[in-house]
Amino acid sequence: MARRKSETPRKRPGGRSARVRSDVLQATLEELADVGYGELSFERVADRAGVHKTTLYRRWENKENLILEAMLERGRDRIPIPDTGSLSSDLAELGKEIIANLSDPGVQATTRTVASIRDRDSAIAELGRRFWRARVELASAILDQAKTRGEIPSQVEPGLLIEALSAPIYFRLLLTDEPLDDEFVEQLAKRVASVGKSRPR
Amino acid sequence: MARRKSETPRKRPGGRSARVRSDVLQATLEELADVGYGELSFERVADRAGVHKTTLYRRWENKENLILEAMLERGRDRIPIPDTGSLSSDLAELGKEIIANLSDPGVQATTRTVASIRDRDSAIAELGRRFWRARVELASAILDQAKTRGEIPSQVEPGLLIEALSAPIYFRLLLTDEPLDDEFVEQLAKRVASVGKSRPR
Repeated sequence: MARRKSETPRKRPGGRSARVRSDVLQATLEELADVGYGELSFERVADRAGVHKTTLYRRWENKENLILEAMLERGRDRIPIPDTGSLSSDLAELGKEIIANLSDPGVQATTRTVASIRDRDSAIAELGRRFWRARVELASAILDQAKTRGEIPSQVEPGLLIEALSAPIYFRLLLTDEPLDDEFVEQLAKRVASVGKSRPR
Repeated sequence: MARRKSETPRKRPGGRSARVRSDVLQATLEELADVGYGELSFERVADRAGVHKTTLYRRWENKENLILEAMLERGRDRIPIPDTGSLSSDLAELGKEIIANLSDPGVQATTRTVASIRDRDSAIAELGRRFWRARVELASAILDQAKTRGEIPSQVEPGLLIEALSAPIYFRLLLTDEPLDDEFVEQLAKRVASVGKSRPR
């Protein structure tokens, strides 16, 4: 997959505390990629980030909080909300960013771990739910833009459209290995946008 | 989830060989539910089915072939191709059958295992791909019926519509835990059917 300009992490403002946070979150994703969710620990992440592990306990309490924040932060950096002027191309951009984000080994390892867990009461399953809710909330800006333009009716539910776009991407990644190329995403985005516009009942 | 009439396995015709096959495939799903893909072995399945393990080696060669056949067979029994007279309700029926099938612990455990594997060259990842291709082939009968009725244009690609129906179901099961109730499936089926009819380009 070609590297995209938008994948360059943006410089975070702030002093030492912001740098520590950024280093810890980056170390978390690297640990996830290297050892996976099961083996990840505050000790290992602290070592990797070069900070004391009490800093991590104080700030995140448990590793699920830490992983969630690392994944959301990466999502925020790497999945900027597109505003191209049309719903279909906004959704295509979003789809491409989701695919690029899932190519990060830490993000992908976490996604696969969430999918592997049968016990939906577990902390890692809860992480999957919280990640999804946060993603929908971020992405609904795309639908607000489309509503403002009058492209879709105001009662369209953001979650369903974002799901219609996201689910086939995860389905191909996790299960069927069908291609995740630009043509696929663009056609998918067109279909999803047309559903938003047609408002079937 | 309410048990459905169609979940009663149909009686298979044939003599001892057909019964042995049926017992082995059933034992395979039970083993998958109990011990998972990693621990499943021809020895354990043969013990459970009360047959000699050489029978299994002769017929299936490796456990991935055996698991694939067990899952496809269950899919064939439990996911009959609906023919209700409309694409939207055929898709809704299919969606409900997919959800009922995924509630089988062996099927679900295998699905989660496929999703957890990063190495897409592995035998279990190949199993996921083969299962998917076989399911699309079976389900395309629904689209052939709709084409015969003139409900959708003949050039609609079956894989894309079946994916648009299936992906949100797996996505909710594996990642987001959003509800998989009848209302969800019926709305989803309507949206997917409307995309098939509108033929966006």
